[in-house]
Amino acid sequence: MKLRLSNKMVREDFQKSFSQMMLEVISNPNIISFAGGMPNPSAFPYKELENAADIVLEHHSKMALQYSITEGHEPLRNFIANRYKRHGIDANANDIIITNGAQQAIDILCAAMLNTKDDILTEGPTFLAALQVFHLHYAKIHTIEVDENGIDLKKFKNIIEKYNPKLFYAIPNFQNPTGLTYDNKTREKVSNIITTSDTILMEDDPYGDLRFRGENQKSFYHFLKDQCVLFGTFSKTISPGIRVGWAFTKNKKIMEKMIEYKQIVDVHTSMLDQMILYEYLKNNDFDAHIEKIKKLYSHQLNVMLSSMEKYFPKDVKYTKPEGGMFVWATLPEGMRAINLSEKASKAGVAITAGDAFYEKKRNVRTFRLNYTNCNYKSIEKGISILGNLIKKCEKSI
Amino acid sequence: MKLRLSNKMVREDFQKSFSQMMLEVISNPNIISFAGGMPNPSAFPYKELENAADIVLEHHSKMALQYSITEGHEPLRNFIANRYKRHGIDANANDIIITNGAQQAIDILCAAMLNTKDDILTEGPTFLAALQVFHLHYAKIHTIEVDENGIDLKKFKNIIEKYNPKLFYAIPNFQNPTGLTYDNKTREKVSNIITTSDTILMEDDPYGDLRFRGENQKSFYHFLKDQCVLFGTFSKTISPGIRVGWAFTKNKKIMEKMIEYKQIVDVHTSMLDQMILYEYLKNNDFDAHIEKIKKLYSHQLNVMLSSMEKYFPKDVKYTKPEGGMFVWATLPEGMRAINLSEKASKAGVAITAGDAFYEKKRNVRTFRLNYTNCNYKSIEKGISILGNLIKKCEKSI
Repeated sequence: MKLRLSNKMVREDFQKSFSQMMLEVISNPNIISFAGGMPNPSAFPYKELENAADIVLEHHSKMALQYSITEGHEPLRNFIANRYKRHGIDANANDIIITNGAQQAIDILCAAMLNTKDDILTEGPTFLAALQVFHLHYAKIHTIEVDENGIDLKKFKNIIEKYNPKLFYAIPNFQNPTGLTYDNKTREKVSNIITTSDTILMEDDPYGDLRFRGENQKSFYHFLKDQCVLFGTFSKTISPGIRVGWAFTKNKKIMEKMIEYKQIVDVHTSMLDQMILYEYLKNNDFDAHIEKIKKLYSHQLNVMLSSMEKYFPKDVKYTKPEGGMFVWATLPEGMRAINLSEKASKAGVAITAGDAFYEKKRNVRTFRLNYTNCNYKSIEKGISILGNLIKKCEKSI
Repeated sequence: MKLRLSNKMVREDFQKSFSQMMLEVISNPNIISFAGGMPNPSAFPYKELENAADIVLEHHSKMALQYSITEGHEPLRNFIANRYKRHGIDANANDIIITNGAQQAIDILCAAMLNTKDDILTEGPTFLAALQVFHLHYAKIHTIEVDENGIDLKKFKNIIEKYNPKLFYAIPNFQNPTGLTYDNKTREKVSNIITTSDTILMEDDPYGDLRFRGENQKSFYHFLKDQCVLFGTFSKTISPGIRVGWAFTKNKKIMEKMIEYKQIVDVHTSMLDQMILYEYLKNNDFDAHIEKIKKLYSHQLNVMLSSMEKYFPKDVKYTKPEGGMFVWATLPEGMRAINLSEKASKAGVAITAGDAFYEKKRNVRTFRLNYTNCNYKSIEKGISILGNLIKKCEKSI
């Protein structure tokens, strides 16, 4: 037998790192991991979820254990819609589809929209698993650099005019991997350019609830209405293991196609999980829970930033995010993050070299640090190890 | 803005019925539904699952609520492997990937294998949601008719020799929609033909555990080893709402690609669900639970068959399955199942006309009856209503 695989899965450029990284972290608890983007398990509301599971299985088991509709559990969709309404977003349950984490929402929207070689636009750097989805759909990926306030509007206008890309994938709050945020003015101007095109904006917002400092910025929805799709998730605020995220759009046709696609690929997201989550949200103060996480992560970020200040050479630059889960650092000229990553791994510290977050750039000087899944002591220790390694590398240039 | 959707999602031939059917059934409890393929909720082990959820969230919450590896919870994969071993199948945890129901396993294998216009072979009729997956991947679908013992070997050989299809999708036990089963001799002969080709057999086996009468037949694995992929699910034995199924294959390269693809599209299946299921399976007698379901479904099937005997005109033919969830009926010449389906719906009885299960055939005389989600009284009442409608139709021919 000759084995014949699909072209999309024999590509050599896929990042295969996630499961390997997870296995490493799970099998070696001594590693200090700034790689990945795992929430701090100490903030999981397990006791409250246990109570919620008891109620669901005691009183609603026939619904929780049976097949259900693809778009998701209606009370949960209503809860999500009501949270959007607090930000002035006119959301209804029917504008929302529940997905297996926001990751699946990205894939489903791409399936609804993309043909082979369609032009799409992403930020550079961007979320590596989104890049992988775009590759799956054989998209032609254009990149626009992110900067302190968002993106360069002139360059953006040029790309939109030249390619009229089907999708623009943006993470406007505490971007993964850079931690940067678009300010309101940039959002409005970006939107004004988008409305001259047929481009749909994908606003991926897994971290928006986790703002430690500064003012909330407006969702692109306010400017784009049915020309955008918003992705959200409970992975960063309740649990990523449960795999419940969503997509929100007022574009009825896109929503219809997303539902059709999800129906075909996995029927619906676990009803048990959806109902447990809803029961938890109904009976607990979700905002207070988020405040608790923000306090925890804000401290972790402060420890990381002050450790970087203390241990990193002055010519290492890094972002100072106002929220989210990541800091983005840039090594001095002549150094490569991939080398640092290899050396750090041997020294018991995991980081993610910036290469993974770029469509094409390799051997970059940037790397991503996650601060949410380490205790204060480990953060300081890990950063000091990295600082020493960077200093050694500098000497050898 | 001009809305530009993907070609695969603007096809007109998609069946959009699932969610609509579900909504109908949920919103109208008075309907007698022989449509769909829903398990009987009275057999859901909700109390045992509640205990399992308590244990998981009380003692293993940090694992259950955190990100995990894509291939799935290892103890659960071991449990599944051990059940295969009881049938002489040399399965290990590493040969198994956990998916969101077996539905996702079908999609993931197709993603790993298929390019646009690749030839594949399906049974005719076959599981409609599998046909939808094949459409998504732009497969060129060939069909071989199912008969009392499986398929016609001569025709099968011709198709395999002519097209060397990448995949052959078969449901050898209590097929959906016909209820038919391949006998051992046919399985061996089919396999002997497949081994002369590069075709991978997809053995979809959601109903294999639910045999009420007769002898278990051998899995195709015994003849095909790494030239087949087996799909299984807990949807028919524990709960479909939880969405946990799996794929098993000894073909390492295919398994690797399936894991890569699933990682990209949704990272992993809910860890909470996987761990609750495993805890349930560890602490309860799963075989005894299956026996209970078999007894229940066997009675339901008997009520349906004896009602058909009593109320259907003699020229309506139907299968007499030894297990599973479906009976397949054929109307007399000159009648169309789609007409009966419309009339039945108005009379409060839902059936699925055979058209949905064929790639191309339309206005067929066949229809599918599911007997697992109705009580005895409803089954008899529903069949008597159908019988009357058929008699009326016969008169009007």
